[in-house]
Amino acid sequence: MFQTAELGQKVSKSEFKQRELILRENLLALQQRLRSEGKFPVILDFAGVRGAGKGTSANLLNKWMDARWIVTQAYSEPSDEEAERPTFWRFWRFLPPKGQIGVYLSGRYSLPLLNFVYGKLSLDQFTQELERINNFEKALADDGAMVLKYWMHISRDVQKKRLELLENDPLRSWRMGPEDWKNWEMYDRFIEAAERIISQTNTGHAPWEIVEGEDHHCRSLRVGEILQERLERHLLKEQFRQKYLSEMRKEVHEKVKQAADNGNGNGNGSHGKTIMDKLDLSLSLGKKQYRKEMAIAQARLAGLHQQAMQKKLSTILVFEGPDAAGKGGAIRQITQALDVRNYKVYPFAAPTDVENSYHYLWRFWNCIPRAGRMTIFDRSWYGRVLVERIEQFAGDDEWRRAFAEINDFEDQLIAHGTVLLKFWIHISKEEQLLRFKSREETPHKRWKLVEEDWRNRERWDEYAAAVHIMIQQTSVQQAPWVLVENESKRYGRIKVMNSVCDALEKAIENAPQCSVKPAGKR
Amino acid sequence: MFQTAELGQKVSKSEFKQRELILRENLLALQQRLRSEGKFPVILDFAGVRGAGKGTSANLLNKWMDARWIVTQAYSEPSDEEAERPTFWRFWRFLPPKGQIGVYLSGRYSLPLLNFVYGKLSLDQFTQELERINNFEKALADDGAMVLKYWMHISRDVQKKRLELLENDPLRSWRMGPEDWKNWEMYDRFIEAAERIISQTNTGHAPWEIVEGEDHHCRSLRVGEILQERLERHLLKEQFRQKYLSEMRKEVHEKVKQAADNGNGNGNGSHGKTIMDKLDLSLSLGKKQYRKEMAIAQARLAGLHQQAMQKKLSTILVFEGPDAAGKGGAIRQITQALDVRNYKVYPFAAPTDVENSYHYLWRFWNCIPRAGRMTIFDRSWYGRVLVERIEQFAGDDEWRRAFAEINDFEDQLIAHGTVLLKFWIHISKEEQLLRFKSREETPHKRWKLVEEDWRNRERWDEYAAAVHIMIQQTSVQQAPWVLVENESKRYGRIKVMNSVCDALEKAIENAPQCSVKPAGKR
Repeated sequence: MFQTAELGQKVSKSEFKQRELILRENLLALQQRLRSEGKFPVILDFAGVRGAGKGTSANLLNKWMDARWIVTQAYSEPSDEEAERPTFWRFWRFLPPKGQIGVYLSGRYSLPLLNFVYGKLSLDQFTQELERINNFEKALADDGAMVLKYWMHISRDVQKKRLELLENDPLRSWRMGPEDWKNWEMYDRFIEAAERIISQTNTGHAPWEIVEGEDHHCRSLRVGEILQERLERHLLKEQFRQKYLSEMRKEVHEKVKQAADNGNGNGNGSHGKTIMDKLDLSLSLGKKQYRKEMAIAQARLAGLHQQAMQKKLSTILVFEGPDAAGKGGAIRQITQALDVRNYKVYPFAAPTDVENSYHYLWRFWNCIPRAGRMTIFDRSWYGRVLVERIEQFAGDDEWRRAFAEINDFEDQLIAHGTVLLKFWIHISKEEQLLRFKSREETPHKRWKLVEEDWRNRERWDEYAAAVHIMIQQTSVQQAPWVLVENESKRYGRIKVMNSVCDALEKAIENAPQCSVKPAGKR
Repeated sequence: MFQTAELGQKVSKSEFKQRELILRENLLALQQRLRSEGKFPVILDFAGVRGAGKGTSANLLNKWMDARWIVTQAYSEPSDEEAERPTFWRFWRFLPPKGQIGVYLSGRYSLPLLNFVYGKLSLDQFTQELERINNFEKALADDGAMVLKYWMHISRDVQKKRLELLENDPLRSWRMGPEDWKNWEMYDRFIEAAERIISQTNTGHAPWEIVEGEDHHCRSLRVGEILQERLERHLLKEQFRQKYLSEMRKEVHEKVKQAADNGNGNGNGSHGKTIMDKLDLSLSLGKKQYRKEMAIAQARLAGLHQQAMQKKLSTILVFEGPDAAGKGGAIRQITQALDVRNYKVYPFAAPTDVENSYHYLWRFWNCIPRAGRMTIFDRSWYGRVLVERIEQFAGDDEWRRAFAEINDFEDQLIAHGTVLLKFWIHISKEEQLLRFKSREETPHKRWKLVEEDWRNRERWDEYAAAVHIMIQQTSVQQAPWVLVENESKRYGRIKVMNSVCDALEKAIENAPQCSVKPAGKR
């Protein structure tokens, strides 16, 4: 694999100057096209052998292009902030928005590689870490991103010379650490691990390019010219893809809808029962009983949350449900029991322009709490398979794919030790009408009711079918959906409180002294 | 997840009759459309709880549609033939061609599920088996296939009733085995494992549909109606996709080529050196020396192959190289040392019509040898990234994706214990001209030279760049490319012979008593 990058290729200084001029002009022009017409981000990763020119190349790209539209991030050991969250949080947080370029050094491949070489990861674990990376890159690429990975290579002997030069250079010797010679001695194991990385993660949508790192002129031109060629191609491809997706969405949706309307059945089960039909919405609770139980539950929650804080056990609660189902009320009962320093509530509506310039999961990754905190999502990433599906902001392929993306996302939260509960707060269609009317009639509640609520109500059955599928595909033992009968708010709120307490209690019992797992542990 | 399939949904017999009539008509019409316009195969998988109607559903689909164009395959324990090959061989061999439907019972998910439930696979191993399945389904879906997986579900109690009914029915009680009650007792573990399967393999391109299995009318209609809806959608989508791919391939390729011609560099390295430039083509061998060494090598190979047979160690040799490089001659020296019962040579040219109606890897999977045999490929799956790339039979996305597909394929061969060697037989462009001319002038060699050879020769540099990338991306320690300097055939043939012998010797030393691994072991 790497012999192909030990050819001793050279480019003279004068040739370099000449080619650099053209290259730079082209890259600048492409960057402008990316900014103006590009509906996608560019994600460039520099990995490879120490001394092969990763940093220099990243610097050059910033020099050649306009650095204002480049996000450059060099990763080292995870910070406290980062270690307290799932591994990929640090990669999501520095993603470029659409139209911009992200350049990463010692990025997502770095720790798995080091940990595998030094025996801290078994082969099985290493393989699974790489699969996690594959999922990450696939999610971005499916969303249109251009992902390109450079593996910068030099031979063992060349690396030795480089390290010696560095060591003996008074101006740069500070860049040498004791681990540099140790790593050099492990050269062959690094290369073997690198081979595994490239074999397993060299996908069509996120390819590796192996670059010979010895001659810096040759190497720089190659890095730039590959970027130029790929970016050119991706800009063209993305034009086609956007056109194809929009045409297809229009026509396929139309025809499938026609077929369904013609009584040719419907595979999405919207004609059948849904799991919500099984709920007993007559369940209720007397006022006195409610007050008593709520006081007990809130005291219990306060205590449990303190313990969770000590054990650094994060909690994420997701609330979804029809308009006026009572999500806000249920959330308030929870937060009343907590200290405002230790929880956050994030309400989500339609994405803003900024949010829309990222992958749809980005804005949720941004809200992942530090260790021990509780985070409450009032509406969430499930919008992808509910409102975005129904309103066709997400095409058929997109919302179907979302189940895998969401399961992978939640799997990362769980693997990090987070307690994750998802509540579907449910009411009947009749009850919704009563609550809408009451909102209309009560001045201080009127702001809560908008035109959109009425429109959503008309699509009640479509939503019910979508919710049914959502629960089917994403309710797993470690991150279950709790269906809450909220026709009587008192009954529903107590059910929510008790579910949270039970889950926390169980997690605290099972938690190790500190729940922060080593970085990258699945 | 599965509570959504325990709703007790029912359909009366009269409603069933009525809806079945419409459904059947629609399915038949769709099957005809698939045959006439469909450029893709349909792959349906029935998995799920025993007694939930997997077999009945598969039978019904065959009854409703024209069974002549349906490939139905029920898997049980692997046969001898199957166990002697990598696990996925049995899945590749029964794939439907484009335009047809494959229906699978107890297919690729069955053994991993059982082995995980009974503790024969660790969670890590189980996860990796599922990733292997993901790769398989992705390769098929990327090629256009429609993949749809039904999970047939019944509750624990319903299953108990079903098993009791079966046991007490004199006509059907033979279908009960001792493992049925044992499995029933493990119900909860099966469900937990099923949840993992669905979470991890529920991709956009190969989705799971969970079907409530209790009421057979309801269940049958649902299976059929889902198929109808998806097939309808996929036929439409595939039309779009084909159009998009061909338009894009035309335009993007044109523009990128223009840019390259305008001297804007080329990321594929065709301007640089290739790894073949490092070969010393002056290496040669005297006739006497050659005869002596060849005699020794052939005797050595004969002995090693006998040992490999005893150890059930399969060998696969791949030969690629420019026209007239001497692949045939090198192969003859090997086969002369072997017993014709124990080896096979497969020459590959452009795919036939039949081969073209499958995924491009299908014809190679078909040639995978039984345990202990040696199989020689004269040209191979690498055509995808050589001739098919250069002649644009495979688009940019397709040949780039092929590296991951090929690595996965070879990884399966290696995991099964196969010795895999890949030879690039190399000559200079000048030497090729001499050999072409000699072929023209020698009557009994003239058939060897065709118009295409001259055309390929004109694209020598393009091929060289493609070969360089191919070696870069697919030469791994366990399945290396051996570059053979064949300007002197005597030198080259000895190098090939010795490489084969060395690899076999090493593998025999390391081999366990019998190399056939348990099915599904990576």
